[in-house]
Amino acid sequence: MIPKTMKAAVLHEFGKPLQIEQVPVKQPKENQILVKVVTCGVCHTDLHACEGDWPVKPKLPLIPGHEAVGYVVALGPLVSNVKEGDIVGVPWLFSACGYCEYCISGWETLCESQQNGGYSVDGGYAEYVVADARYVAHFPPNINFLEIAPITCAGVTVYKGLKETDTKPGEWVAISGIGGLGHLAVQYAKAMGLHVAAIDVADDKLALAKSLGADITVNATETNPGSFLKRATGGMHGVLVTAVSPIAFKQGIEALRRKGTISLNGLPPGSFDLPIFDTVLNRYTVRGSIVGTRKDMQEAIGFAVEGKVKASVHAGKLEDINQIFDDMRKGSIEGRVVLQIGSPTL
Amino acid sequence: MIPKTMKAAVLHEFGKPLQIEQVPVKQPKENQILVKVVTCGVCHTDLHACEGDWPVKPKLPLIPGHEAVGYVVALGPLVSNVKEGDIVGVPWLFSACGYCEYCISGWETLCESQQNGGYSVDGGYAEYVVADARYVAHFPPNINFLEIAPITCAGVTVYKGLKETDTKPGEWVAISGIGGLGHLAVQYAKAMGLHVAAIDVADDKLALAKSLGADITVNATETNPGSFLKRATGGMHGVLVTAVSPIAFKQGIEALRRKGTISLNGLPPGSFDLPIFDTVLNRYTVRGSIVGTRKDMQEAIGFAVEGKVKASVHAGKLEDINQIFDDMRKGSIEGRVVLQIGSPTL
Amino acid sequence: MIPKTMKAAVLHEFGKPLQIEQVPVKQPKENQILVKVVTCGVCHTDLHACEGDWPVKPKLPLIPGHEAVGYVVALGPLVSNVKEGDIVGVPWLFSACGYCEYCISGWETLCESQQNGGYSVDGGYAEYVVADARYVAHFPPNINFLEIAPITCAGVTVYKGLKETDTKPGEWVAISGIGGLGHLAVQYAKAMGLHVAAIDVADDKLALAKSLGADITVNATETNPGSFLKRATGGMHGVLVTAVSPIAFKQGIEALRRKGTISLNGLPPGSFDLPIFDTVLNRYTVRGSIVGTRKDMQEAIGFAVEGKVKASVHAGKLEDINQIFDDMRKGSIEGRVVLQIGSPTL
Amino acid sequence: MIPKTMKAAVLHEFGKPLQIEQVPVKQPKENQILVKVVTCGVCHTDLHACEGDWPVKPKLPLIPGHEAVGYVVALGPLVSNVKEGDIVGVPWLFSACGYCEYCISGWETLCESQQNGGYSVDGGYAEYVVADARYVAHFPPNINFLEIAPITCAGVTVYKGLKETDTKPGEWVAISGIGGLGHLAVQYAKAMGLHVAAIDVADDKLALAKSLGADITVNATETNPGSFLKRATGGMHGVLVTAVSPIAFKQGIEALRRKGTISLNGLPPGSFDLPIFDTVLNRYTVRGSIVGTRKDMQEAIGFAVEGKVKASVHAGKLEDINQIFDDMRKGSIEGRVVLQIGSPTL
Repeated sequence: MIPKTMKAAVLHEFGKPLQIEQVPVKQPKENQILVKVVTCGVCHTDLHACEGDWPVKPKLPLIPGHEAVGYVVALGPLVSNVKEGDIVGVPWLFSACGYCEYCISGWETLCESQQNGGYSVDGGYAEYVVADARYVAHFPPNINFLEIAPITCAGVTVYKGLKETDTKPGEWVAISGIGGLGHLAVQYAKAMGLHVAAIDVADDKLALAKSLGADITVNATETNPGSFLKRATGGMHGVLVTAVSPIAFKQGIEALRRKGTISLNGLPPGSFDLPIFDTVLNRYTVRGSIVGTRKDMQEAIGFAVEGKVKASVHAGKLEDINQIFDDMRKGSIEGRVVLQIGSPTL
Repeated sequence: MIPKTMKAAVLHEFGKPLQIEQVPVKQPKENQILVKVVTCGVCHTDLHACEGDWPVKPKLPLIPGHEAVGYVVALGPLVSNVKEGDIVGVPWLFSACGYCEYCISGWETLCESQQNGGYSVDGGYAEYVVADARYVAHFPPNINFLEIAPITCAGVTVYKGLKETDTKPGEWVAISGIGGLGHLAVQYAKAMGLHVAAIDVADDKLALAKSLGADITVNATETNPGSFLKRATGGMHGVLVTAVSPIAFKQGIEALRRKGTISLNGLPPGSFDLPIFDTVLNRYTVRGSIVGTRKDMQEAIGFAVEGKVKASVHAGKLEDINQIFDDMRKGSIEGRVVLQIGSPTL
Repeated sequence: MIPKTMKAAVLHEFGKPLQIEQVPVKQPKENQILVKVVTCGVCHTDLHACEGDWPVKPKLPLIPGHEAVGYVVALGPLVSNVKEGDIVGVPWLFSACGYCEYCISGWETLCESQQNGGYSVDGGYAEYVVADARYVAHFPPNINFLEIAPITCAGVTVYKGLKETDTKPGEWVAISGIGGLGHLAVQYAKAMGLHVAAIDVADDKLALAKSLGADITVNATETNPGSFLKRATGGMHGVLVTAVSPIAFKQGIEALRRKGTISLNGLPPGSFDLPIFDTVLNRYTVRGSIVGTRKDMQEAIGFAVEGKVKASVHAGKLEDINQIFDDMRKGSIEGRVVLQIGSPTL
Repeated sequence: MIPKTMKAAVLHEFGKPLQIEQVPVKQPKENQILVKVVTCGVCHTDLHACEGDWPVKPKLPLIPGHEAVGYVVALGPLVSNVKEGDIVGVPWLFSACGYCEYCISGWETLCESQQNGGYSVDGGYAEYVVADARYVAHFPPNINFLEIAPITCAGVTVYKGLKETDTKPGEWVAISGIGGLGHLAVQYAKAMGLHVAAIDVADDKLALAKSLGADITVNATETNPGSFLKRATGGMHGVLVTAVSPIAFKQGIEALRRKGTISLNGLPPGSFDLPIFDTVLNRYTVRGSIVGTRKDMQEAIGFAVEGKVKASVHAGKLEDINQIFDDMRKGSIEGRVVLQIGSPTL
């Protein structure tokens, strides 16, 4: 039933193209499961991994991918929380130690011993992927495999980022950057009862935000977001910066009302200029936020399964991954590309 | 009983010495009270006011001072919450609008219409000061007027700053800078059940911190606080930066454990370099904090009245204020100077 | 312009009918304003007041009513936060001391010195009502005066009660009792991003709840709400009991999932049986909640003004108040009766 | 090294004496470890277990005990977070599923699939006990094995109960019942910076509370705690009821100031009378609390290891367990009995 080998996109050297090749299908051990991949989203982080951009390098050879969704087809001997045929997602947070102060307090995303899918362990650019049953995302039947894949990374990331703004229903949140992350953030914010201001530099992105429920939009090339939003709303209670750029950060701070919180998603190098006087006098809070815990994940999936949040995706083929990466480098991708790897029925 | 005129230190022109002169004693109106000043602390902010250092200038002529403590000697017609003979403090937050979203939610320190004592209205460098009864600090009898004065500004500021680190008893907080603010912060932190690491560049300051209960001290000129404290404790849950300097901010961030919060007291110009990657990956929170609300004030006073927190002070005379300012400019002041203006008994 | 006398419904003796009579129009003093009443909702509390049901009795003679909405027509000398022509609401929390630990921390609803509209001071069953400008609710122009009136009491009460369940978007809350309070609670809960289970004993009430967005409904005469809701949803994260009856309380507790919170609105005499074993083992939280603060009020109004929450009302006339009270005693009122007293235009 | 059999106190039939007998020493599997017991506290729950008092019965035959502290002497094949020679505690929360909404959010104490030490699995009344390495408590070297044992159950229970009162340093908490739980609660509360009022019916218990730092004491047989404490302090911000009796609950509620929280430890049958009017009007919060999570445990141990909290204990022998149970039935035990089973050195 389960083949001995599978097709996978494999990185052998940083900066070189991925190779589409046959590799062995691994057996799940202990708490692991084997997942037959249906779809796997392509995240910008995958490109960073393949370029070796970050200080801590991924394993080599590497099968990238941390937005895989598929069917459980085999169980390690200790697995009890999923069964064959279940639909699961294999996320960036592949596993964590389970013992540290973060793991025991519902913050396993901060575990110093975590493994990351498609980075320190092989990921979902393949027909099969091994996962840790204790850390997979759980889906109900009858999902749209293409649309749901980005929820496991982009979706949970912005959902958590919004939670970290400490805003509550009826308050205002600005979403800065209406791309792969931001267009999901607008939908999550609306589903959370928030008023949404969308900030971008492209009118089509702002039109998208509007169609997804944004109450107000600002084109930052034409209008100063801070003064405009303060005039229109009294200022934002929260800001989520998905486009992590110095100018977006500055505009985000300026759009806050007193006591507001700005939450940062994304991992660019470098630093931001934090204005001290304004931060202290206005009691601003600045907070970093990365992916989300298993609890956040299930909550984020809940909104998507209900149809309140839907990713804008394009289907791609595993064989086209190098072309997709090229397009990504050029910034010519609209929405999220999701690899259609296996059949949506088991 | 109440004289027509009083002695006061008056600023007529920014950057010029204060004049000791006789000025009229004002009548308290509506919700105001007249306070016979016993002591008034000298805060660095007073010097900034007299130099006209900040974008929004104080009134002129100005009687500085926002750490006045004294006896209520006359009441405006609407006052009902204090009576003659009560001991009150006249703080930086002289009054607020009472209506805005901050005033009605216990955050009057963020009111955009606030008046500030010794800045936008006359303050406590005088024998009498008018106060708004709704915003004064309340003291029990038998306090030490000299030692209590700095609690109304320096004390409440660090107490609030510590609360804003979101730490809880048993956790670790670092106090960066053991000066007028920091030596109080060490005591508050210990009274709040926290473990305290003191960071400074002077061994005598660190010895003081130790004597006040600091569990661990670091001389930042000899030892890297971040790596040292992480090794010794696993990292700080919170950091309070009282010495607001770029290097203290950087060291503070580096001393945090994941999910930690760094709280900033103080209002220097300029900006800090916020390292994005670290902030996001480690879920750091950076938060500004300025003075404290009336609730914070009463809590801060509570600790002091119980004897758990005690300011290190030197008595000064109103007539010596220009000399005190000079010493302040030179940085040659140890602890807090408090002006002894009136008799401690009514 | 402002007449010397006005028509009002006045109670002279507990348990006797209200008298429609001409009484003097009062002048607003200090922080007071005079409001020309457009509408005033009839709350069950008004009936309790007129019957003298509660231990602390209202003033006599009394003009009841604490859901008045109208135009500001005169200002006391100290008023600065409203102007003539503004539309305001005069709520149950007529005023508070402004100084106590609750008033200074955004919990003025707990002030021991509060005055209550239509109880300890005259209320809105009249052509004019005096209000304290610092405690009125604020409305934009172009509101529906009939529909908005109940928001100032019933609306804010359930909105606050829902906040007090500590639930967050995506979680489940049960609304027990779909009457004057409950039909608003369903709408607030949906606007807050919650999943809603409605519990009642009448199918038409449940149909109403469904039409207002309830995700699931339970007729408690046919189905055990606890076991049904646990099976269907895993249990409620929060429960709001608007129908404060022992059986509703018991059913509410039973519907909670572990770590859930049950919030109680309403002030019946007597006590509930709190099951100790279940409360401890399941870490249940039981919390009382009464009306809401000024901040809660403005938030509650915000949802209504946006059209997300709409009270089901019937217009009544001031002259018919005794008949309305009779209907209320018989329980034959559907939705909320709101007295149409003055013209909706100034 | 590790013997094949060990001495243990075994229950064969509910209500009958324990048998001291030789039983096999088990091998630790997967995530399990074998612990050589040094001490094991005797908790009232053990007596309930042996009597079969509760609806869900323990396993039979049963080795009771859930306050065991000892040395790790053997590791299951998957264990990586402890090593041989480590000192660990084997608590009531023997293990949990690791997957449910509670386990993944730091509330494993609410896991529906939890195993309980000395109840659903064998416990610490024996020379060796098998534990789940993922759920043990961790101790540093050089602890006092007798005094530390009760921290793993009584200590963490009251520590968590205090946290659940939502009080903060400087506020007032009442500890109702100064027995095995309460005398620890007084110490934890003081270490957490709280003001403590001790309530009991025995003067010697109150004298103990005073010596442990209680700021105020009330003998409930002579003085009404509610009115006395409100007069003396304005009312309690929190109350921890360790003596779960109807009268203690009533007194606890009455001692609360508005917005206060009463936290319940303990699992008696029956129910409490919750006064509705008072609960709603005063915004009281009533909350159950049972044992504590692994995070709570490590925090509770931290205070004890620092010497801030110390259990009052008497050493007993395993062979005397039936006598100890008899004394417990008679209520003639002062403080906690801890069985000295093995050598404090490995």
